[in-house]
Amino acid sequence: MSGEIVFVGLGLHDETGLSLRGLEEAKTADTIFVELYTSFMPDFSIRRLEEICSKKLCMVSRRELEDENGKIILRAAEKGKAVLFVPGDPLIATTHIALRIHAEKTGIKTRIVHGASILSAVMGLSGLHSYKFGKSVTIPFPDQTFSETPYEVIAQNQMLKLHTLCLLDIIAEEKRYLGIRKSLEFLLAIEKKKKRRIITKDTLVVGIARAGSNEPKVKADSVNRLLEYDFGEPPYTLIFPSKLHFMEAEALIVFADAPERLRDEAE
Amino acid sequence: MSGEIVFVGLGLHDETGLSLRGLEEAKTADTIFVELYTSFMPDFSIRRLEEICSKKLCMVSRRELEDENGKIILRAAEKGKAVLFVPGDPLIATTHIALRIHAEKTGIKTRIVHGASILSAVMGLSGLHSYKFGKSVTIPFPDQTFSETPYEVIAQNQMLKLHTLCLLDIIAEEKRYLGIRKSLEFLLAIEKKKKRRIITKDTLVVGIARAGSNEPKVKADSVNRLLEYDFGEPPYTLIFPSKLHFMEAEALIVFADAPERLRDEAE
Repeated sequence: MSGEIVFVGLGLHDETGLSLRGLEEAKTADTIFVELYTSFMPDFSIRRLEEICSKKLCMVSRRELEDENGKIILRAAEKGKAVLFVPGDPLIATTHIALRIHAEKTGIKTRIVHGASILSAVMGLSGLHSYKFGKSVTIPFPDQTFSETPYEVIAQNQMLKLHTLCLLDIIAEEKRYLGIRKSLEFLLAIEKKKKRRIITKDTLVVGIARAGSNEPKVKADSVNRLLEYDFGEPPYTLIFPSKLHFMEAEALIVFADAPERLRDEAE
Repeated sequence: MSGEIVFVGLGLHDETGLSLRGLEEAKTADTIFVELYTSFMPDFSIRRLEEICSKKLCMVSRRELEDENGKIILRAAEKGKAVLFVPGDPLIATTHIALRIHAEKTGIKTRIVHGASILSAVMGLSGLHSYKFGKSVTIPFPDQTFSETPYEVIAQNQMLKLHTLCLLDIIAEEKRYLGIRKSLEFLLAIEKKKKRRIITKDTLVVGIARAGSNEPKVKADSVNRLLEYDFGEPPYTLIFPSKLHFMEAEALIVFADAPERLRDEAE
């Protein structure tokens, strides 16, 4: 019997981001796996998700998915229907894409049940227009990888009048989440070296914490101000907006407590 | 009593894209509205959603949301808790952003329950890497708006080695959905005029139909081939990929039945 893997997105923040379709898939699965290291879901409880699904869940580690190429999931899928729960929208992480390629090549069918993703959530939370976002980028932990890429991506987008979404790195296994203050200091350090006036103390930036929760924090102000702002618990995201449309300025003022002067600078 | 509006995303394709959190919000709402004109959900049934929520839903039209600024929703939210169901992830459409701004300015609190969005779904379906997408663009009905913007956006992204997501226009009220063939012919017509060799008959393109359904169609090939390909029922999306990473090429071959030669052209 040839089986299948259904990649099911858990959405954001906790297990209630699961869709009704995702729940149905889980209920008819022979084995359910869950992966929790590619994104951080602050209020997620594996026990509660097991109760919702009325089934035991099997947690898979980075080692099992990456070093062992998801062998444990592929084996379960050879015999029946395996569901893999992943944070956000599935198959954004390359690990999941690799597993899906591997599965299909060995004759295991795959399907996707989509979930809410940080990539679109930040657009709704900030009110910035989706078609004005350029390439996005991840800011790595400065002590792990010193990369000027985030700075270069923001610079290129600014030149093209496009907003930049910056995802901040996490190391889930160590419960380490790159903070907004650290990210901004990192970008300012590159600025100090490059001196291109891409990210200065006056640059407008939007910080977002806990997207998808009932109390997300969204704050827009200068880099200087955001360095001092308390965003509370992780996870975090940053947006460097480009030239604002007047409705975007209005949205940032109302949704993100941005300075009123943005209204005069918008087009 | 000051009330609130909760914007709840329905995700893709049908009512089972609703999240468990979204369902909870609906169950405790005093009034539930649903808007279905900003995106097309092929298998959505208002009756089935009413059964799921055990409540009557009130459909709002484009006129009520745009011309009358959502007055009907704002009034319901003054007295209690109003839920507005919207396709996809809420607040991507500017109409919803305008309503949210208006609500907050008149003292009505707003919250968002995110849903799956086509913006990230196409990344998972195609296996193309999220951080390689540039600015996205909507292709309008050529008989309504003749705009060279989509061509220019694809050209700019190509120059920057970025993929372009093209959303195809819909007029929900008239059940009109711009097709893949018509979109490609439109882009070829602009190419004929501009002669910049941005979109030729040999350009690689990915067509996606019915994202979020159990049987999405994903096909990657030259423009020439896709002009003849039968994608079945709407809605549709196009991606113009830029230079491919070898894993992206592999994904397109396996997930989207792309020609094997992509493997040799990848980097």
